[in-house]
Amino acid sequence: MATKAAAKKSEKFVYFFGGGKADGHGKMKDLLGGKGAGLAEMTNAGVPVPPGFTITTDVCALFYKNKNQVPTAADEQMVEAMKKIEKLQGKKFGDRNDPLLVSVRSGAKFSMPGMMDTVLNLGLNDESVKGLAAKTGNEWFAYDAYRRFIQMFGKVVLNIDSELFEHEISQQKKKRKVKTDVDLVADDWKQLAETFKGIVKKQTGKAFPQDPWTQLRMSRDAVFGSWNNPRAITYRKLNDISADLGTAVNVQTMVFGNMGNTSATGVGFTRNPATGEKAFYGEYMINAQGEDVVAGIRTPKPIAEMEKDLPQAYKELRKITSMLEKHYKDVQDFEFTVQEGKLYMLQTRDGKRTGPAAVKIAVDMVREKLITDRQAVVRVDPASLDQLLHPIFDPKERLKVSSAAKGLPASPGAATGKVVFTADDAVEWVNKKKTKVILVRQETSPDDIHGMHVAEGIMTSTGGMTSHAAVVGRQMGTPCIAGVGDVKINYKNKTFTVGGKTVKEGDMISIDGSTGELFLSAIPTMASEIIQVVSGKLNPAKSQKYKDFKDLLAWADKYRKLGIRTNADTPNDASMAVVMGAEGIGLCRTEHMFFEGGRLKIMQQMIMATDEKSRRAALAKLLPMQKKDFIGIFKAMQGRPVTIRLLDPPLHEFLPKREDLMVQIAQLEITTPNSPKIKQMGKVLARVNDLHEFNPMLGLRGCRLGLTFPEVSEMQIKAIIEAAIECVKKKIPAKPEIMIPLTGIRAEMARAREQAEQICQDAVKKAKVKVPYLIGTMIEVPRAAATADEIAEVAEFFSFGTNDLTQMTFGYSRDDAGRFITHYLDTNILEKDPFQTLDQGGVGRLIQTAVKLGRETRPGLKIGICGEHGGDPASIDFCHNNGFDYVSCSPFRVPIARLAAARAALLKDAGFIDK
Amino acid sequence: MATKAAAKKSEKFVYFFGGGKADGHGKMKDLLGGKGAGLAEMTNAGVPVPPGFTITTDVCALFYKNKNQVPTAADEQMVEAMKKIEKLQGKKFGDRNDPLLVSVRSGAKFSMPGMMDTVLNLGLNDESVKGLAAKTGNEWFAYDAYRRFIQMFGKVVLNIDSELFEHEISQQKKKRKVKTDVDLVADDWKQLAETFKGIVKKQTGKAFPQDPWTQLRMSRDAVFGSWNNPRAITYRKLNDISADLGTAVNVQTMVFGNMGNTSATGVGFTRNPATGEKAFYGEYMINAQGEDVVAGIRTPKPIAEMEKDLPQAYKELRKITSMLEKHYKDVQDFEFTVQEGKLYMLQTRDGKRTGPAAVKIAVDMVREKLITDRQAVVRVDPASLDQLLHPIFDPKERLKVSSAAKGLPASPGAATGKVVFTADDAVEWVNKKKTKVILVRQETSPDDIHGMHVAEGIMTSTGGMTSHAAVVGRQMGTPCIAGVGDVKINYKNKTFTVGGKTVKEGDMISIDGSTGELFLSAIPTMASEIIQVVSGKLNPAKSQKYKDFKDLLAWADKYRKLGIRTNADTPNDASMAVVMGAEGIGLCRTEHMFFEGGRLKIMQQMIMATDEKSRRAALAKLLPMQKKDFIGIFKAMQGRPVTIRLLDPPLHEFLPKREDLMVQIAQLEITTPNSPKIKQMGKVLARVNDLHEFNPMLGLRGCRLGLTFPEVSEMQIKAIIEAAIECVKKKIPAKPEIMIPLTGIRAEMARAREQAEQICQDAVKKAKVKVPYLIGTMIEVPRAAATADEIAEVAEFFSFGTNDLTQMTFGYSRDDAGRFITHYLDTNILEKDPFQTLDQGGVGRLIQTAVKLGRETRPGLKIGICGEHGGDPASIDFCHNNGFDYVSCSPFRVPIARLAAARAALLKDAGFIDK
Repeated sequence: MATKAAAKKSEKFVYFFGGGKADGHGKMKDLLGGKGAGLAEMTNAGVPVPPGFTITTDVCALFYKNKNQVPTAADEQMVEAMKKIEKLQGKKFGDRNDPLLVSVRSGAKFSMPGMMDTVLNLGLNDESVKGLAAKTGNEWFAYDAYRRFIQMFGKVVLNIDSELFEHEISQQKKKRKVKTDVDLVADDWKQLAETFKGIVKKQTGKAFPQDPWTQLRMSRDAVFGSWNNPRAITYRKLNDISADLGTAVNVQTMVFGNMGNTSATGVGFTRNPATGEKAFYGEYMINAQGEDVVAGIRTPKPIAEMEKDLPQAYKELRKITSMLEKHYKDVQDFEFTVQEGKLYMLQTRDGKRTGPAAVKIAVDMVREKLITDRQAVVRVDPASLDQLLHPIFDPKERLKVSSAAKGLPASPGAATGKVVFTADDAVEWVNKKKTKVILVRQETSPDDIHGMHVAEGIMTSTGGMTSHAAVVGRQMGTPCIAGVGDVKINYKNKTFTVGGKTVKEGDMISIDGSTGELFLSAIPTMASEIIQVVSGKLNPAKSQKYKDFKDLLAWADKYRKLGIRTNADTPNDASMAVVMGAEGIGLCRTEHMFFEGGRLKIMQQMIMATDEKSRRAALAKLLPMQKKDFIGIFKAMQGRPVTIRLLDPPLHEFLPKREDLMVQIAQLEITTPNSPKIKQMGKVLARVNDLHEFNPMLGLRGCRLGLTFPEVSEMQIKAIIEAAIECVKKKIPAKPEIMIPLTGIRAEMARAREQAEQICQDAVKKAKVKVPYLIGTMIEVPRAAATADEIAEVAEFFSFGTNDLTQMTFGYSRDDAGRFITHYLDTNILEKDPFQTLDQGGVGRLIQTAVKLGRETRPGLKIGICGEHGGDPASIDFCHNNGFDYVSCSPFRVPIARLAAARAALLKDAGFIDK
Repeated sequence: MATKAAAKKSEKFVYFFGGGKADGHGKMKDLLGGKGAGLAEMTNAGVPVPPGFTITTDVCALFYKNKNQVPTAADEQMVEAMKKIEKLQGKKFGDRNDPLLVSVRSGAKFSMPGMMDTVLNLGLNDESVKGLAAKTGNEWFAYDAYRRFIQMFGKVVLNIDSELFEHEISQQKKKRKVKTDVDLVADDWKQLAETFKGIVKKQTGKAFPQDPWTQLRMSRDAVFGSWNNPRAITYRKLNDISADLGTAVNVQTMVFGNMGNTSATGVGFTRNPATGEKAFYGEYMINAQGEDVVAGIRTPKPIAEMEKDLPQAYKELRKITSMLEKHYKDVQDFEFTVQEGKLYMLQTRDGKRTGPAAVKIAVDMVREKLITDRQAVVRVDPASLDQLLHPIFDPKERLKVSSAAKGLPASPGAATGKVVFTADDAVEWVNKKKTKVILVRQETSPDDIHGMHVAEGIMTSTGGMTSHAAVVGRQMGTPCIAGVGDVKINYKNKTFTVGGKTVKEGDMISIDGSTGELFLSAIPTMASEIIQVVSGKLNPAKSQKYKDFKDLLAWADKYRKLGIRTNADTPNDASMAVVMGAEGIGLCRTEHMFFEGGRLKIMQQMIMATDEKSRRAALAKLLPMQKKDFIGIFKAMQGRPVTIRLLDPPLHEFLPKREDLMVQIAQLEITTPNSPKIKQMGKVLARVNDLHEFNPMLGLRGCRLGLTFPEVSEMQIKAIIEAAIECVKKKIPAKPEIMIPLTGIRAEMARAREQAEQICQDAVKKAKVKVPYLIGTMIEVPRAAATADEIAEVAEFFSFGTNDLTQMTFGYSRDDAGRFITHYLDTNILEKDPFQTLDQGGVGRLIQTAVKLGRETRPGLKIGICGEHGGDPASIDFCHNNGFDYVSCSPFRVPIARLAAARAALLKDAGFIDK
């Protein structure tokens, strides 16, 4: 890179701003970083900004490529820019009588608060500090500034533990018997500056650099170096910021808020970032430097009080910040300094905000005509809607405790309750003891559904984002944390251990399904206002929050192209989803229906049957039950399309567990060797052994089941079409879409389609009514994706089952992969959990192939997604960009999907960019 | 299709042959079928062939498309062709005084013996039979011919049970008190002809058609119709013949072998089709029609005796068949008839032969300079080499028994022995009782290796072509039948039941691993001569069979482009493979090494370790053992490349089974509740539970294991590189290729590569020797195939692990899929078991993508296959066509792979077509 750097000597590496004019402008965030672009924009807008210059992010990249050295040209341009500042300020950098002092700060494209390091008061040395003292007539201020500079430089540039410096200040205060820094006298600071230089010498083996240019270059390089400090890396990872962006370096003339009682420094927001309320919000300190506010050394005052303390500066601040909010059309998070009565704006940027605030601010600004509804839609992060829908911990209470372990955030929301270890216990404790419970299991299974229904929350020690607990939790809207590997469960003693502590049945715990955290105490939760309205417990007219939420989503619906469906298995789920805005059911799983009421018994009879006749007898009993279920769902959906998947899981899931049977029989053989129960259980075990699979996920399930036992599919198809006919006869429109699961071969789909067509046509003909129905398939086996052209010949729609497709494309069992996925995420082998966000680079390639091949065969083929990814904004973006017709997700994610779909449409199709 | 038929009136549908000249020729097999093309070619070559015509296979396709009707044009052309025959023969079709009689036969592109139906003597009716009797002066012959015609027509065209006719003949013989047909008199046949017509009338409700043209058209349509009879469909399925080909219909002047003692009929081969011996081979009958020979009604005489009976005809037959063999350059399977002393050739075709015969004939013919070595290579079906390598049942003994059940032909070869149900029993019975055993298990696991080693054969009731039993069986060369679903094992009683019979431990059974058949008795087996030579038990100079085998493979080596490697885990396997012609090891599985000797115990210590330190302590003990293994393998391979795969299976495979532990603990808790063993076993169970996976195939295995416990990979990599160094120091060249299993993400491979490079470079540097090594990966996860461009950035070679790739692409667990794959094959949803022959249409698409992407990134990337498909000829063809560098298969399949690779090269690259 040395050569490249050399070759591009003419390149512009340094951008000046000051005197009402800047080389750059506000849109150059890539090159100048957010802060640099903001300073340029503010300067150009006539805001009083101390002059300075920005060294570009290009230099950062060259710095790393060139063994941590900036190109010569960048260094030369920096010297030139400094001359311009000197000219504007009428001071010289390094002048011993009236030194120009500067700050050096990082500034990446995206704001990374607290992640990067800052050096202030740069340019001071043993000589110029005297000049500064003489010039300002304020020795206290000058030596305080000098010691601050040494301290910050020591910490940031030389990597010296800050505590060493703080300790000396404390000692000095003890010696002087005073409490605050302000109570120290100038001589104290002078003495401390000497002591600090001694620390630097001792810690680094070198004297504190006296040459201001050396100070500047070392600081600049330290800022570039800090781009890759661990905190910065972690922040980027958590916030999806690419490591390639790099940071810019901003060098800016120092202004001082600590030059006496007409000086001050502060930070603020143009609106409340927690609630979104339209109120000037912030805090300030008289006679302090900015870092004092941030560091919390003294308690700052609410900004409203500044009107009294510094009325002129306050008035100007209000005027400028109002102007800035209008200019940027968003809440501004600003920093300012008043130096001897004169206001300087140091920084402004779009303010971070909570989910509820994001919605309120966006909607308010549309109503204020500050932004358009399209801008509002793009501006709200869809994921943040979660906070409006799920119960959350009382934030104050939450701060008081720390988490005991962390698992996967499997189903969002906060829950608190007593620990139970079995589904039966959950039901008993809730019904008889009238207490709230958290169900703790190694992993849940369909057997646990009744317990999951009554539990406040679910925790599992194994399993991933699409394990049974996670999927059902999201479906029910019940908070769940999954794969909490540090939790070791002992079912026998009804205890679990975590971090050396043992938790017994009945102990209170809390879980946060949005973060994956476990807490070993009760934390009060707050109900979500929106949910209260949606569930009819609160009058919508009384909830401004609900009104805002509804308006925002109505705008989203205007712009989105994707249809939004829901995954729902019951009329209840379906109704809830319709209220949330679902336009159809994308996935109705029929298997859960077999666990309800007395059905499991009949299902087991069917499975235990040794011949087709007795199998059919059991199925005949199930038919009217399934039909009733479907009628309920069709009614709830009122003519919206309902995609019903035929039986998918392997049959052994409906029988008792193999190992349990083995243990019970072995025990009975010792205790009651002649018990007839042994024979009876042995029969069940024999069938379970028959059906036993080493890898059930890759076994006899999906359409393989339906093709092997056609009478099972027959019953289900009959139930679907007869239910639809019955509805249509009662003038309830019904649009069934029969979905064949797990096809991988054209012939599978062809056979299944043939069977379904026959049954449907016969039934419709007999009933003499018109029922519009479709027969399509899930694409969830890699082979189906690779041969989608062939499968599309016989399928009327595709729905990507991205859970299974991810499982098979990666070769990860969603029930087992939790442990190594966690390891992979920790060690950056995986950037994201592919069960949470669609793996666009791998699984996505297969999906793109399938969409292309499928539509080549059948132009206009209806394509949807019904995996868990259907509710993930990034995955929805992918679906939009790849021409899907709809996404389907759990009822509680429908609003998120609506918003995400609108954003995808605005950002991609309309080329719409916010601001 | 009626329109198409109409539009193409000018198309030629009927090809005439006769009088030394034919419309068609021998290369028109697609259009005329094998038989029709042969008749045309023979006619053109001057062979005495009764004149006739062929209705093309195109007509067959049109027949099916046009609702079982031939196009009008074809029918018209048939009438024209008949006129030509009449002119040549000087007889009229349907003439009442001297009728022209014809045969109607099917003839598809590929010979399908016994599959299609034939009608002889067509043209006879109540009037012309009298004419025939008068003309030949042989009433017996005439009415015999007539009743035969009615019988055949009744059976073939009218679908009447042949038994009804045969019954009447028997009755007639009883009445006459004679034993054979020949003893009946003319009146008997006359009477039987009447009776037969009565049967036709009774069975069909219509009179036997008297119009010869109606007879002809009905017969023609019946032949076309028989293309889709169940026998034909089954034969095509078994022999990989496309249903689209269709059959032609051959109509040919009848000649009669049953016109007295100067007439005869026979069939023969120019060489012995069973052994390949160069000897005129066949049988004939005096005064008989062809069907008598085939049907086995009378016992025919060996053809040599014909020299005495019919010297002139015999001499001509020898001359003509010799000429035909030279003409066709292959063994001829011919049919002839002598009519009153004059020889007619009815058919000739390339003769089917056994594997051993195929080799001998091909090699002999090269030596005779009849064909080139390239032709010899192309002519021998690689799969037929199997018969030369594995023990087979004595064919005579085999005929005496029928199979009790059928499973998958998992590892070829015949075996017979006493039933045992556990590996321990197998060892005990073999060592102590000195008896041969067949190990019968539901499925085998690595725990059973010691028993599998000593068993003659292995049978499992579940599992597929790549289940543990199948893979290990092929590896060891031990016959195995897998997934015999009808066999129900009761381990407790040490019995299994099949088809209502119970088989006890110690009972004799036999299995045929080449067909999948199970027999409930002992069948003597024959050792393979080649194997005796290869294993040093027979002097190669004494075995002509071995010499032929060796020569053929040497020619194959001249032409093949693909390298052939072997899958071998031990020095023994490796040495055997080298003798078989392996050029390297494509897959050395390290996990089997951990089961040997005392290693399992150390391995278990390693797994039970709760911290890295004790884990490393156990690994340190394993290091020298693995190193020793690798040294042995490097020595055996003498400088050939050795691809070693790092540990692949999940760790719980090395621990006792979860359910067994649960049962044992439950029992102990009742019987000896305070036993310290409970605690000890509980500890193991806790770890097993920790490691338990619902779908181990998709769990913590392959590189996921190595990346999670880097110390395990570290030990293995050290063992490999140190073994190589030690060899090189001793002047034994060693070329290790370290293979990372189950990568799916570029970062996985990058990390694994980094670790391996570090260890290898350090070791090589320290040792100061040069060791050429490569570090690459298996491509077995669909995601790896889809992102091969990225993975190739960090992998030095690709080896397709098509077992896993097939599992994940289809979503089939190889241990479980047996049952539904069988169902899918039976119902034609699958054409072939994808674990046996590579699924080119699905998995193959992913492989093609991976090869393309991989070489885009890394041109010349070394690409191989090490799944079980590496030994399957069709899959080898695919590998050749897609630019692979090598295939790797079990030692016993190496010769097959060498031949298959040569054929692939000759047939594809050189565009070489045999004949």
